[in-house]
Amino acid sequence: MAGHDQTIGSFLWRAERLYPDTEIVARTHDGIERYDYATYADRTRQLANALEASGIEAGDRVATVSWNHHRHFETYFGVPNTGAQLHTINPLLPDEHVQYIVENAGDRLVFVDPSLVEKLESAYDADAFASVEQFVVMGEAVPETSLDPVTDYESFVGEQEPSYEWPELDEDQRAGMCYTSGTTGRPKGVEYTQQMLWSHTMATLTPQGLDIDDGDVVMPVVPMFHVNAWGMPFSLTAAGAKHVYPGPSPDPEDLARLIEDEGVTFTAGVPTVWMGVLEYARENDLDFDSLERVMVGGAAAPKSLIRAFDEEFDVTMLQGWGMTELSPVGTLSHLKDGMEDWDAERKYEKRQKQGLVLPGLEFRVVDDDGEEVPWNGEDFGELYIRGPWVTDSYFERPEADETDFEGSWLKTGDVVSVDEDGYVKIVDRAKDVIKSGGEWISSVELENALMAHDAVSEAAVVGVPHERWQERPAAFVVLADEVGVDRDEVKAELVNLIREDYPKWWVPDATLFIDEVPKTATGKFDKKRLRDEYGDESLVADEAPDER
Amino acid sequence: MAGHDQTIGSFLWRAERLYPDTEIVARTHDGIERYDYATYADRTRQLANALEASGIEAGDRVATVSWNHHRHFETYFGVPNTGAQLHTINPLLPDEHVQYIVENAGDRLVFVDPSLVEKLESAYDADAFASVEQFVVMGEAVPETSLDPVTDYESFVGEQEPSYEWPELDEDQRAGMCYTSGTTGRPKGVEYTQQMLWSHTMATLTPQGLDIDDGDVVMPVVPMFHVNAWGMPFSLTAAGAKHVYPGPSPDPEDLARLIEDEGVTFTAGVPTVWMGVLEYARENDLDFDSLERVMVGGAAAPKSLIRAFDEEFDVTMLQGWGMTELSPVGTLSHLKDGMEDWDAERKYEKRQKQGLVLPGLEFRVVDDDGEEVPWNGEDFGELYIRGPWVTDSYFERPEADETDFEGSWLKTGDVVSVDEDGYVKIVDRAKDVIKSGGEWISSVELENALMAHDAVSEAAVVGVPHERWQERPAAFVVLADEVGVDRDEVKAELVNLIREDYPKWWVPDATLFIDEVPKTATGKFDKKRLRDEYGDESLVADEAPDER
Repeated sequence: MAGHDQTIGSFLWRAERLYPDTEIVARTHDGIERYDYATYADRTRQLANALEASGIEAGDRVATVSWNHHRHFETYFGVPNTGAQLHTINPLLPDEHVQYIVENAGDRLVFVDPSLVEKLESAYDADAFASVEQFVVMGEAVPETSLDPVTDYESFVGEQEPSYEWPELDEDQRAGMCYTSGTTGRPKGVEYTQQMLWSHTMATLTPQGLDIDDGDVVMPVVPMFHVNAWGMPFSLTAAGAKHVYPGPSPDPEDLARLIEDEGVTFTAGVPTVWMGVLEYARENDLDFDSLERVMVGGAAAPKSLIRAFDEEFDVTMLQGWGMTELSPVGTLSHLKDGMEDWDAERKYEKRQKQGLVLPGLEFRVVDDDGEEVPWNGEDFGELYIRGPWVTDSYFERPEADETDFEGSWLKTGDVVSVDEDGYVKIVDRAKDVIKSGGEWISSVELENALMAHDAVSEAAVVGVPHERWQERPAAFVVLADEVGVDRDEVKAELVNLIREDYPKWWVPDATLFIDEVPKTATGKFDKKRLRDEYGDESLVADEAPDER
Repeated sequence: MAGHDQTIGSFLWRAERLYPDTEIVARTHDGIERYDYATYADRTRQLANALEASGIEAGDRVATVSWNHHRHFETYFGVPNTGAQLHTINPLLPDEHVQYIVENAGDRLVFVDPSLVEKLESAYDADAFASVEQFVVMGEAVPETSLDPVTDYESFVGEQEPSYEWPELDEDQRAGMCYTSGTTGRPKGVEYTQQMLWSHTMATLTPQGLDIDDGDVVMPVVPMFHVNAWGMPFSLTAAGAKHVYPGPSPDPEDLARLIEDEGVTFTAGVPTVWMGVLEYARENDLDFDSLERVMVGGAAAPKSLIRAFDEEFDVTMLQGWGMTELSPVGTLSHLKDGMEDWDAERKYEKRQKQGLVLPGLEFRVVDDDGEEVPWNGEDFGELYIRGPWVTDSYFERPEADETDFEGSWLKTGDVVSVDEDGYVKIVDRAKDVIKSGGEWISSVELENALMAHDAVSEAAVVGVPHERWQERPAAFVVLADEVGVDRDEVKAELVNLIREDYPKWWVPDATLFIDEVPKTATGKFDKKRLRDEYGDESLVADEAPDER
């Protein structure tokens, strides 16, 4: 006795039958494309026929290297509904990572955006790409390319019939795949079963999730190669909402125009995107009448940004937190019932946190001894999480499985605090938190404190080995302007800044001025390189604090 | 590779941690009881310890015979979270059905409401109840009773510790059980796995479902023995909403008072309940300020009721459809985006239908040849449905499995039409639809048409065997008042009524006046008895219509 298998195909069935006329809009290289769910469903079936004609079978992996548009969206249902597995590749990764990923996944067919053909040519390596039998350029024509054999998407699907009998799939069937762009070591593959995507979709539909209804017009700016654009293409389809895809490299003007022209009610992306849009909207006196909500994730939105959208556009900025391993959404910073009446500052404070866990998930926050830390907004520990859309393993990485999981729990590697109301706040990455004398120091909080100084443009703090205290913080500071700055004075002011808000033992033992903080491929501080270059004990040994 | 198992325990974890102070309120024999999720969670753990002390193990069945209150709600998580199976028994069933059900399920322990002790004593049969080792009366004391051994609920749980380590359950673990109160033959048991309850809960949370958030105050009037009060106790907990349970035999005044005193925003029950509440509210000038939505199911709400709640109280009546086999919700009559602007009559027309299928489900409507009928609001056929919260079998009834399922589809036995917008409307029960000359005639539509005549108080229409047309409709009419009524005149008027709105061949071949329509135990027309008593061919043979 059991229910029927949980498969995402049911969402497409519902959208096609209940919302045949609702639109899917995409900004492409050739202008705005526009069609409805009825046409979309036909095209996914044409795509399925094309994949079958190419010999793609259930269990095979099909990759995409592409921006957000209708053709990419067609692969979202067209590939997994056949039983094949959609593997979305991040085109911003270094070539050697793309090679590793394609080889590791054994992709048989690769869909590539016209504007990413060059990137893929650059990453191409005959050995790594040995499993790839075909490239399909996601446009109406094939540009000059060394990729071979290659066809264009419209020819690939265009000749096929729009009728196709979707197979009945098991909920354990692999449906999606995405690699974490880890800052250290090889990327790790996370696979999504039909059931994981189904569960994540249902959870995101709820009021506790993204609260999506058929009246919503949703523009996912977050790339479709970043964990399925946070799962939104699936959620919107389940709800029968209108999709708006911003296409290749949208600038603030493109995004603002789509919001206004298409009547976008809800959009989602990283905070930097919204800073650009905010500036553009102010300069051009836009009011974003239709817009109600903006989801931000990937990084914490500054309070000023949350306030600006709230006060200037009456738009709620919804902070979220997720991971590739979570399909990806884990928490969202909805205000609880009653909090709407709080004064604005207090609300922004809450909204800035990563928020409340979605129904269906469970978490615990544990210290070094594996004990749960209290929910008091101050104590912090590593976040362990579990649930139906949280993976329990990495693809072909048994060694990672041992370090990154404990029983049914995923060890997220994120260090968090939880306040009395249950709001999670990311404090640091576990590998970056500084463990000093049995206590933890948040590198992120120190960096934010240092960067609050006018003279500082960037600051990174890392733990450096220390004989007595295990680790001590060392700060690496980039000055906004070298001219006329007294480094010793700045250094003293920085120490005072920290002393004001944090325990004495949080004050870095060393503060070094450098020209630039090294960055990873995705633009994050490369703390591993900082530690490798500067992190020997001599850096902190002679500057140990006098009391702790 | 997979996500963590889907179990309802995660919902309780979330409610306890995020909403410890949110209330659970119950009207009981002893007045209003009130506590919060923190206390509730403690009591479910005490209950788990009590069950363990009684020797109840994972896989065992634990029954309840009870009204809606906090103690009954405690069994909802307290029993399944241990791995045992909660079997809710309908106390309105005849004794022999209760006997059959208890014996068939092999219940080991039975919780019984103080006011239902007598009912259970009446149903008690030593052989049928051989598996039952213990009775627990859901109050603070045990009344005089022949049930043995027996204890009271507060003694049963009161001595136990509120700490208990819930086991990690498999999502296939049986968590719930409910018997269909079939009008013919023995009741059939439907079992709910953890996964089915989890899926149903997530689906009901969505805006397409019941759209429940932490600000909601929800009163399930639908009995907790009717498919888990339509799953609401689970949904409310997942959302962190406030629960209000109306207790034993609430009358309209009790319900109205709870709505006003507790600030109920959302309530749910069968239409007749709301007719009573409407009358009481009008008489007492109540305005139901807090109330926003009323879900109705079990039967179709009359348009006048939908209009009254809308116009007099600004309350949206949400028609739904479900089945025991569906955990139970399948469709809900939300208006689609844009329909809010329709004129009132057209909206009520839509709202009166059973509505739009929930995301995650798929259905088809098939005629006798197994062909799908078009969605045009006119053609009808039997509804086949499938999804993660739709059962694929009955408990120990392989013969029913063969007739009631086809592949992955449940044959619902409901005959429906679907309109162009995708709204499902129940037309008849499959066993009551009249199959005449290869076409189907809806007995329900004919009955409604006949009952629209002022002189008619009840009308039932059944199919009678016919040599040429296979079946022909025969109408059984109860007059509102015999005095001064010319039966032939009424008969002629009834024929005209039908001719006005339906094809000629829908006109019943015979119209018989009877004193009373026989009823089933649950108050529905007993058409089987009508057919047994009157349904021979002679009834229709001499009145065959001249043209079809």
